[in-house]
Amino acid sequence: MRPHPEHHDAQAVAALLAPDILDLLESSPSSIASDTEEMHPADLADVAEKMPRESVPLFLAALPAARAAAILEYLHEELRTELLEAMSPEQAALLIAQMRPDDRADTLDEIDEDHAEDIVEALPQATRDETERLLEYAADTAGGLMTTQFVSVPETNTVEVALASVREMARAGRREAMNTVYAVNEFGALTGVLSLRELLAAPEGARISDVAWTEVHHVHPTADREDVARLTTEYDLVAVPVLDNENRLLGVVTVDDVIDAIQEEQTEDVQKLGGMEAFNEPYMQMSVYGMLKKRAGWLSILMVSEMFTTSALQHFDTELNKLPVLTLFIPLVMSSGGNSGSQATSLITRAMALKEVQLKDWWRVAARELPTGIVLGSILGIIGLIRVLVWQHLGLYDYGKNGVPYELVALNTCLSLIGIVMFGSLAGSMLPFVLRRLGFDPASASAPLVATLVDVTGLIIYFSVALMVLGKYMGG
Amino acid sequence: MRPHPEHHDAQAVAALLAPDILDLLESSPSSIASDTEEMHPADLADVAEKMPRESVPLFLAALPAARAAAILEYLHEELRTELLEAMSPEQAALLIAQMRPDDRADTLDEIDEDHAEDIVEALPQATRDETERLLEYAADTAGGLMTTQFVSVPETNTVEVALASVREMARAGRREAMNTVYAVNEFGALTGVLSLRELLAAPEGARISDVAWTEVHHVHPTADREDVARLTTEYDLVAVPVLDNENRLLGVVTVDDVIDAIQEEQTEDVQKLGGMEAFNEPYMQMSVYGMLKKRAGWLSILMVSEMFTTSALQHFDTELNKLPVLTLFIPLVMSSGGNSGSQATSLITRAMALKEVQLKDWWRVAARELPTGIVLGSILGIIGLIRVLVWQHLGLYDYGKNGVPYELVALNTCLSLIGIVMFGSLAGSMLPFVLRRLGFDPASASAPLVATLVDVTGLIIYFSVALMVLGKYMGG
Repeated sequence: MRPHPEHHDAQAVAALLAPDILDLLESSPSSIASDTEEMHPADLADVAEKMPRESVPLFLAALPAARAAAILEYLHEELRTELLEAMSPEQAALLIAQMRPDDRADTLDEIDEDHAEDIVEALPQATRDETERLLEYAADTAGGLMTTQFVSVPETNTVEVALASVREMARAGRREAMNTVYAVNEFGALTGVLSLRELLAAPEGARISDVAWTEVHHVHPTADREDVARLTTEYDLVAVPVLDNENRLLGVVTVDDVIDAIQEEQTEDVQKLGGMEAFNEPYMQMSVYGMLKKRAGWLSILMVSEMFTTSALQHFDTELNKLPVLTLFIPLVMSSGGNSGSQATSLITRAMALKEVQLKDWWRVAARELPTGIVLGSILGIIGLIRVLVWQHLGLYDYGKNGVPYELVALNTCLSLIGIVMFGSLAGSMLPFVLRRLGFDPASASAPLVATLVDVTGLIIYFSVALMVLGKYMGG
Repeated sequence: MRPHPEHHDAQAVAALLAPDILDLLESSPSSIASDTEEMHPADLADVAEKMPRESVPLFLAALPAARAAAILEYLHEELRTELLEAMSPEQAALLIAQMRPDDRADTLDEIDEDHAEDIVEALPQATRDETERLLEYAADTAGGLMTTQFVSVPETNTVEVALASVREMARAGRREAMNTVYAVNEFGALTGVLSLRELLAAPEGARISDVAWTEVHHVHPTADREDVARLTTEYDLVAVPVLDNENRLLGVVTVDDVIDAIQEEQTEDVQKLGGMEAFNEPYMQMSVYGMLKKRAGWLSILMVSEMFTTSALQHFDTELNKLPVLTLFIPLVMSSGGNSGSQATSLITRAMALKEVQLKDWWRVAARELPTGIVLGSILGIIGLIRVLVWQHLGLYDYGKNGVPYELVALNTCLSLIGIVMFGSLAGSMLPFVLRRLGFDPASASAPLVATLVDVTGLIIYFSVALMVLGKYMGG
């Protein structure tokens, strides 16, 4: 009962294995533990998800508590919550006590508050204290991500003593943050760090304080998870220590949690960029009602803003009635502005998320986007000009009705495209700065928001250009 | 000369330190190595970037080669390339030989091909062979990411023997992939894996084959970096082994490279979603000309596609001339369709990137987006209806010119919003599936592309609804 290591479609393998496990649950539940011993808990979690929901508790009960707890960590949030809420607080506490401290806190955060409190009360005292401490931190901070299972040794220890205590801790079954060893002084303050590899390489008899790195990159528990991610990426860390104000080690954020945080931040950013509120669940697990709540708000706001286009058109209706040919290019010109704005916004939002661009760089960005917008606008303007001339010459449409020279219609299209694309690039690139300056998330500068802004302004640009180029054909 | 560990604005610290280092370069270059000994190479790279370019080679020359090589790894690509191209191949080879094998290959990939070949020829034979092997793999594959510095031990070794050889390797100064120990059989094939922590925890006297995990998640060297990332995330790995067809260990992809790959993929996806080609450089380092090349192509394609809106409007120009009131709502209705499409596309593209949604799920997605679109459309439709009625009643505009009942204008706006938003949600969610089915990257389903698609179709929907609702006022 071991999937071939080359077979990476874990879902398909899990679907094949689920019936086998169900059979075993009927025939000899006691053999399940040994039969699945070599499997990764992530794979067993996949198997559990393929089972009928009522069999999952039996499956978990057939395994040692530590193993069942590890599977719980990898289950979808929805199923995990459902399972734990169906158990008595005492049953749930037995499992939850075996989870990694950070996953334990996250799990308790997800389930019904009253039930979670009952479970916490049923935990052994030490575990309970630790859990209550972790639950105080917001989930998207270093405190919310950190585990309290780490290895620290007094800096005065010799390498051999430190190594012996690491071995002891490893044998005691600790599962996390073991690749890095932290050195602390007599007040418990962090004074150094070294990797397990460096500890192994250190000369025997040396003191930890002699071999540890004294410059330790760390965070405070209230640090945003994005800052933890940045530190991890910048210095290629596998763990980031979390210190209190007295430099005492509270916990460690491990790289696997950092990766999850990076992925979640990215999902949120893409969703905001798409013009909606961030989902907190995978797409397929979100209810249609839940989706509506996240999507309808922004869509309505954008539409109400877009109503200014109707007002603008109403304002210009005399001109439009005189020169209905102007109507033909409204969608073309507006969408080109929106597209160039969407490009600029996506670029700058991402560069800001990666800290490639800071607030103070706004004018340098503007100095790049302005010429870029002018050139892009000119390219599109020329395409637009050619379009009008070609259609006219091929006799596909007569842009010269109402006595207007079609050349001026072409020129009008060209010039307004230059103006609008220039404005779109500039507005799209500046919007994330404005949002950040006002204290909002720059990622809220969505493509649709920029498009809407540019649409409204674009119409005004379009009619201003038209008044210049074709003014005398609109007159009274 | 050690930045305070709490001070995370590495750039500011580097700017402060650069003049000190420059002074030392003048006064006592020999003390630089010991003065900067405790600093992380990433920080020293920041310092180097704040120096005048001509001083950087002197700074690197003042450090031991291994240290200088580590700094090179963290420098911006642009500066690193410039430095190495300015050195003689022999000088460059001395530094490059000390880099981590995967960074060495990446670095050589970046610089001028002829110069890179000369450098490779100047490398010591073993390093040269290893480098040439790594250079064969594409940069975005497991082979391109992997390092060849890893720890493997014969599976028949005892834990104590294995630990001794790990210590020896660590002391020999290997810098990477040391947190995981790989067990191999007599043919060199990978048979198991255990973490350094597990090796330390293993009972003395046990054989490696008894204590290693036999189920090893691995990849082949041609695997896409996204697959490596997925495996790392799914199983919380710190290293992914890369095997050849005989299951021999070729190298290991470490988690820091996986994180970099994840960030790069995400940047590419955001840029594609914004409607342009992916940049390969940070925004600020890209030249304006380079940006134009990446942005003008899609922008032109989108504009040419959007020209169908002009054609559609030309087609309906009789109707428009009869009922100019229809013009007023064109931007409003079209942009609402584009926005709902942008939401759906962002959601599905991201869900596909995270493998939450597979190609075969298309109908399940459609079954969710259709009702979502209808409800969203109804919400917007009602807002639109109210807008027309309120403006009419307040006397702000008369939608009832040309003898058309304004109630029908309101109804027309409402119904076409429902149709267009429904179509936008459906088209936006299906486009990534269609692109993937056709072999394209689903991330190319950009918000602007969807908006353009929906704009053109939206106009047709708009006029079809208008013909139904207001047909008799347009007649001949």
